[in-house]
Amino acid sequence: MNEKLRRDADAIVAASIRAVQPDEAVRRALEGREFPGRVRLVSVGKAAWQMAKCAADLLGSRIEAGVVVTKYGHSKGPIANFDIREAGHPVPDDNSFAGAQAAIDLVRGLTPQDTVLFLVSGGGSALFEKPLVSGGELADITRQLLACGADIVEINTLRKRLSAVKGGKFARLCDPARVYSIVLSDILGDPLDMIASGPAYPDSSTAADAKAIIAKYGLKLSDGALALMEEETPKQLDNVTTQITGSVRQLCAAAAQACQSLGYEPVLLTDRLCCQAREAGSFLASVLQTHAGQGRRLAFLAGGETVVRLTGTGKGGRNQELALAAAAGLESVPGGAVFSVGSDGTDGPTDAAGGYADCDTLPALRAAGLDLYAVLQDNDAYHALQKTGGLIVTGPTGTNVNDVAVALLDG
Amino acid sequence: MNEKLRRDADAIVAASIRAVQPDEAVRRALEGREFPGRVRLVSVGKAAWQMAKCAADLLGSRIEAGVVVTKYGHSKGPIANFDIREAGHPVPDDNSFAGAQAAIDLVRGLTPQDTVLFLVSGGGSALFEKPLVSGGELADITRQLLACGADIVEINTLRKRLSAVKGGKFARLCDPARVYSIVLSDILGDPLDMIASGPAYPDSSTAADAKAIIAKYGLKLSDGALALMEEETPKQLDNVTTQITGSVRQLCAAAAQACQSLGYEPVLLTDRLCCQAREAGSFLASVLQTHAGQGRRLAFLAGGETVVRLTGTGKGGRNQELALAAAAGLESVPGGAVFSVGSDGTDGPTDAAGGYADCDTLPALRAAGLDLYAVLQDNDAYHALQKTGGLIVTGPTGTNVNDVAVALLDG
Repeated sequence: MNEKLRRDADAIVAASIRAVQPDEAVRRALEGREFPGRVRLVSVGKAAWQMAKCAADLLGSRIEAGVVVTKYGHSKGPIANFDIREAGHPVPDDNSFAGAQAAIDLVRGLTPQDTVLFLVSGGGSALFEKPLVSGGELADITRQLLACGADIVEINTLRKRLSAVKGGKFARLCDPARVYSIVLSDILGDPLDMIASGPAYPDSSTAADAKAIIAKYGLKLSDGALALMEEETPKQLDNVTTQITGSVRQLCAAAAQACQSLGYEPVLLTDRLCCQAREAGSFLASVLQTHAGQGRRLAFLAGGETVVRLTGTGKGGRNQELALAAAAGLESVPGGAVFSVGSDGTDGPTDAAGGYADCDTLPALRAAGLDLYAVLQDNDAYHALQKTGGLIVTGPTGTNVNDVAVALLDG
Repeated sequence: MNEKLRRDADAIVAASIRAVQPDEAVRRALEGREFPGRVRLVSVGKAAWQMAKCAADLLGSRIEAGVVVTKYGHSKGPIANFDIREAGHPVPDDNSFAGAQAAIDLVRGLTPQDTVLFLVSGGGSALFEKPLVSGGELADITRQLLACGADIVEINTLRKRLSAVKGGKFARLCDPARVYSIVLSDILGDPLDMIASGPAYPDSSTAADAKAIIAKYGLKLSDGALALMEEETPKQLDNVTTQITGSVRQLCAAAAQACQSLGYEPVLLTDRLCCQAREAGSFLASVLQTHAGQGRRLAFLAGGETVVRLTGTGKGGRNQELALAAAAGLESVPGGAVFSVGSDGTDGPTDAAGGYADCDTLPALRAAGLDLYAVLQDNDAYHALQKTGGLIVTGPTGTNVNDVAVALLDG
């Protein structure tokens, strides 16, 4: 293993993950921001507790009251005088409904000078919900949509109309107060109407769209649900300011900055990577092969979330598989390395955050009697990288804003 | 379809393929070059005829005599006073042996002032051969090597020792004349000892390597063949000058130049691309998604040769599949297009050279009642692109230096 490249990789990983921690992300979004009137906090999603904690630490008694709804087991104790709740995910339950109601109650009676500090993270769609039909009918409509092969945009078009908070409606409930929404994005491309189903983001779908979907698939809805389809969702929300933070873009930006501070010239290829893990590894290795031997120090960055094609029964994760697959092309690149990590610190069902490979990885595999192709076919990157010293272990990081892969070149 | 992007794509394809035509490649390699003494020509490979023709046109009577060995059906008639031959490919036959012998006879009796103009293209390994064992034993050893799973480097290590011309030995036979070798590369990374098995390139493998391979696999060789393993191949060839031309690097360079002249800033990602076609398409689309909307005109280039994973029975080729797969990510990029072509003008078993996709491709597929994922699973890119106007047709081009894929961004 190239010890210097591996040290650089570890430093880049640490700096990147640090930058997208929920508290760091919230701190950056609140920095230098003043709120004129009263401030009430609503924090929903899997990172709701950490985000609320950071806001409380920064703003102290400026926050009058707060409601926090996170996933079961995700609360780490009391914060100030906040109402901390846990609820069902990925399927909403009564605690999700009760949490949403508590938030709705909290934001009532405010004035145009006041602010609802709305902290949103992944999982909010299930954790924060107030259905306008019975839980039973909501589940039935969802089942019908899935059975007929409706896509996620179609499903959301209907679900936003069956909810009192989704599709911008929570922001309407905050009116006349201002909403300052800090969104920790875990979806590639930061589609704000998708993250937590966009409680404070205008909805672009229309009642006509909704009715067309019902006709297209011949869905069976109650009269009450059909009446809801006629109601238009908010198309504009003048009282909302949205700040995306801690997304894969910031993960990539932080990685690029860390590369630069180590003397590598960063080149952002993409922050929307979604292809197969092993093919992305091959692609990145081929990039290094082409630029090697010119005496340059380069870092090619690819953020996103690859997928693993399951062909075996081994142990691994998409980041480990990406790095291991790159090993084939890296043997001929002495100054090159490819590494990839998940920002949550948990890559697949393993205790590693990701993997690292360089020109010594393939020889080390051979010395251990392993065939790279066979290992990849068995999806067993974990054990292979364990043998080559290529596992990257960070422990759970408390955030999840996708992955970043880096192809480093030193000369 | 974005007519402007499509026009630019066609112009870039035409300019790229023009630059790597065998005659254009030879012309560039001979430009301004003077040969002091007599000049004799040996041209071997699938493009041997075109390369020899170009040299004859440029140098005229300066070439005293020539031997050309190409594949059956690849000669297009007489050239000057040259001895034009056709032989077996991919399995060498008696005409391969006779052609090599004619070349060996031609280069005898030259002086240090004289030059052998040696024109090499893909396929030369089979078309140009003089075995030092019987054809039967050569076939038997090859069979043993394949059966035991030896890799291509191991196979070549042995085969170079069983040949009178491979592994730099043809250049030795030209000695004391100088050899000016023009290599039309069809292998990624231009490994000169692999192209046509490197008749005029030093061999890095040793007699010790050869014996280790025989022991490793327990190969059975005759005493005569075993004696050949003891003989060292040339490690240095002072009489040879090598000029690589018309490789995928020139294909990429020409594409980059064409992009630049159309106002796009070219970014070479790789000239060693070897991953799955559809994943490369997805990767390139994700690159465009990330850089879109910044008002820049960019062209990301990826040269190489992808592979198609066969999952269906449709019609297509790797370039068509790459472009079609990109369509999924391109729908959200109005100013983006991805196209890919094979420099031979023949992509898979189709009459198209490659494919083109932009933001209108997916809507056009939907309008035609086609599902992108289903089409890709059926490997039926040809018929899908036919419906979207996305086929790129050039006709056979007379060369083969791999493929080039381009991701264009206009704003």
